[in-house]
Amino acid sequence: MLIRLDGKDALYLQVYRALRQAILDTDLGPGSRLPPTRLLSRDLGVSRNVVLQAYDQLYAEGYVEGKVGAGTFVASELPEELLQAIRTSHQDGPRETVERRLSAWGQRALRSGAPTRTPPYPEPPLRWDFQYGEVAPDEQCLKLWRRLLARRAENLHLNYSPAEGWPELRVHLSEYVRRSRGALCSPEQVLVVNGSQQALDLSARLLIEPGDPVVIEEPHYQGARQSFLSAGARLVAAPVDDEGLNLSAVDTEGARLAYITPSHQFPTGAVMSLARRLEMLDWAESHDAYLLEDDYDSEYRYGSRPVESVQGLDRRGRTIYIGTLSKVLFPSLRLGFMVLPEDLLPPFVAGKWLLDRQSPTLEQAVLADFISEGHFERHLRRMRTLNAERRRVLLEALEEHLGDAVEIQGTNAGVHLLVWFRHLRAVEMDDLIRRAAARGVGIYSVDRYFLSPPERGGLVLGYSSMSPPEIRRGVAELAKAIRDE
Amino acid sequence: MLIRLDGKDALYLQVYRALRQAILDTDLGPGSRLPPTRLLSRDLGVSRNVVLQAYDQLYAEGYVEGKVGAGTFVASELPEELLQAIRTSHQDGPRETVERRLSAWGQRALRSGAPTRTPPYPEPPLRWDFQYGEVAPDEQCLKLWRRLLARRAENLHLNYSPAEGWPELRVHLSEYVRRSRGALCSPEQVLVVNGSQQALDLSARLLIEPGDPVVIEEPHYQGARQSFLSAGARLVAAPVDDEGLNLSAVDTEGARLAYITPSHQFPTGAVMSLARRLEMLDWAESHDAYLLEDDYDSEYRYGSRPVESVQGLDRRGRTIYIGTLSKVLFPSLRLGFMVLPEDLLPPFVAGKWLLDRQSPTLEQAVLADFISEGHFERHLRRMRTLNAERRRVLLEALEEHLGDAVEIQGTNAGVHLLVWFRHLRAVEMDDLIRRAAARGVGIYSVDRYFLSPPERGGLVLGYSSMSPPEIRRGVAELAKAIRDE
Repeated sequence: MLIRLDGKDALYLQVYRALRQAILDTDLGPGSRLPPTRLLSRDLGVSRNVVLQAYDQLYAEGYVEGKVGAGTFVASELPEELLQAIRTSHQDGPRETVERRLSAWGQRALRSGAPTRTPPYPEPPLRWDFQYGEVAPDEQCLKLWRRLLARRAENLHLNYSPAEGWPELRVHLSEYVRRSRGALCSPEQVLVVNGSQQALDLSARLLIEPGDPVVIEEPHYQGARQSFLSAGARLVAAPVDDEGLNLSAVDTEGARLAYITPSHQFPTGAVMSLARRLEMLDWAESHDAYLLEDDYDSEYRYGSRPVESVQGLDRRGRTIYIGTLSKVLFPSLRLGFMVLPEDLLPPFVAGKWLLDRQSPTLEQAVLADFISEGHFERHLRRMRTLNAERRRVLLEALEEHLGDAVEIQGTNAGVHLLVWFRHLRAVEMDDLIRRAAARGVGIYSVDRYFLSPPERGGLVLGYSSMSPPEIRRGVAELAKAIRDE
Repeated sequence: MLIRLDGKDALYLQVYRALRQAILDTDLGPGSRLPPTRLLSRDLGVSRNVVLQAYDQLYAEGYVEGKVGAGTFVASELPEELLQAIRTSHQDGPRETVERRLSAWGQRALRSGAPTRTPPYPEPPLRWDFQYGEVAPDEQCLKLWRRLLARRAENLHLNYSPAEGWPELRVHLSEYVRRSRGALCSPEQVLVVNGSQQALDLSARLLIEPGDPVVIEEPHYQGARQSFLSAGARLVAAPVDDEGLNLSAVDTEGARLAYITPSHQFPTGAVMSLARRLEMLDWAESHDAYLLEDDYDSEYRYGSRPVESVQGLDRRGRTIYIGTLSKVLFPSLRLGFMVLPEDLLPPFVAGKWLLDRQSPTLEQAVLADFISEGHFERHLRRMRTLNAERRRVLLEALEEHLGDAVEIQGTNAGVHLLVWFRHLRAVEMDDLIRRAAARGVGIYSVDRYFLSPPERGGLVLGYSSMSPPEIRRGVAELAKAIRDE
């Protein structure tokens, strides 16, 4: 607690004035706690009684509120002239001024569409939220997770661990992707990152020079687009058909990077054919380019056998593989990983070190145990069954309530569907989203996933955070919202 | 598990061949586990007996090892020709080729001095390691931490939380820096990051354009230098005297950013005088520049009262404040925070989102509890006492064993000392470091913290990871190592 006594008047008045000033300057903000009188008196070298008198004075004048036992707090409701002082103590410079002070990357980041602030939670809250990427708690998994967490916390690794990632985790992840994704990799090729967004950002930063053409799918995950745009990429948007991205439809001259989601194109759900996969690899080789394979939800396939990753077909070190744990465990974990060609390891490790030195060790160690003890793959099988059921129910409900009004894409995999309206246009979506929200239903337009959004209205419906009954009810309410207008 | 049956011969032979190929291709690496026969037979739609026969065949030929109950594993010792296949399956492209493929940032990052791989742990291990920044376990703190961790894990927040940081944590951090560092900030100005390195990287990325002059202290924290160099900064190294960085000694024309450690200059320990602090603020205002205030270990002051942060003197939004929890809690936590001028919030929030969307939620929530329940400041007081004792013992031991052979800087604060040799030159340090390591003592040259290292030999001795007896013994062994040559 930093307060200066001015040496005038009685000690308690000096303390009172100093604290009062601190409150006016918001060094002590509304509602914040004053130091315990015992501590402050010790810090200032005055008797505790002096501090008590000063607090009483502040209390008498309404600057602070005492909660017996709970300590003394700055009044949450301060007189207007005080609030004025607080407001003016932080000037907000005009936006242009700030933009002028930013690097080219900073200016592009501002314009990339990446959120510049987190919007407040919607009021009323969304009871049936079809937000893509959210998950529902799975008690069986969380119980195990908590147990492993407690065990590792008993014996916490406190100091820095390798930038590449926790060694055991790299081993278990490499075995997992070899086993389940047909990937071709050694533990040394695995780099642990804070979720797939960091993998995208790191790749964009290390491989894209402003002005470089970068091939992306149209539509595509907007987080990737925003990272590439911030890096100054000139985006080459290749159309997606039933076989996945169609390279032959665009001019890729000079492109050194292509971002693809072969196992389950986001958001259309198309699975890239083997022919196209080999075509992509040849393209990369002939253009001295890299393929950025985002295998974001390959774990969720229903009925069909899993499709091998492009990385597993690549013997020439052209593929950068990105895996995430957000879809199969939970997003707030912030863990993902990359499988890198060996010659890219040094720059990516240096980049990771510069970004944040390493990902948090505790989560990495817990995840390593979770995989090595077999919980991970058991959990995956259970989630596959759960999400298959959610998907079935969602499809039924859409059929029942919307029927021919919609056309549905991407039903064979993943944790979302793409729903196109036959008679609603894109411009009508905002209004529909508002009407649905009023009924407690969260829906999200497909627009954001396009570089050039289509005329036709479409929604991406995520279903991994709701129970089958919630999904049914959510679709019923959505149908009402559609009829509302 | 991705294996293809070729349809020739008996089923068990097809399965055997497919698995054998997978082992040769290292799709199944040495020591990795084969899928349970029950699962594989189900996946392949063949009888379990077929799979068992295939496994027996592989076992007979030495490709796999069976551990009863523990499952079947690929042999860890494979015949040479197999290992050959494994090695050649990852070609290492020539370094130049890769550099050519990197962005300018990537190429600078490679040359910045940031580690491109984590070196293996030293053999024999260092029994007395004066590594700066490492911490010793503090059972009292860890017990509390584990308790809060378990409580928050009971009720884990699974989905994304704001990029700005966990709301409660931002409130508690802002109160903490107002109270203890005299900072002037509202919770909205706090951005939670993954340790101070991410704060440095984010600032460099948002504020530095290639070619921009950036003022740093000489010497300085090398992680900051490496981030600025990677961003393409032209470094202007200002000398440090007893009053801290001396701006008048350098040409700062065109500089828009100055990186400073006013409360405890790293690594010299100088405390920036009030006059210099005000000078820095005026400089920033007149140059339309920002001050990047790294308050990395201000919590550790011995005897003297804490010094107010520069941010707390700044009413014109010129200071970007960086705080870290690595020094007071533990580095593997990877949590730090920034206090930003309000007009810089939008670009920094967008930047943080693009980097990794958010820091892990669990640790943020636990830290929020740790602070709000008063554990944090109690812990700080205890650590201050512990580190004061370690420092006292280190100074005594240096006096006893090295006496006039060394000159010591930066004793009034922090968790490290800077030791200059009177008769050893910088070129002799590598040899001394080797001799010390042979005795189990870890020492680190001050060189890395200089843009232009001095002739004279110097060491940065961190003492926060050792007990007083270990410190005494370590210095004694160091003294022997010095006499060795």
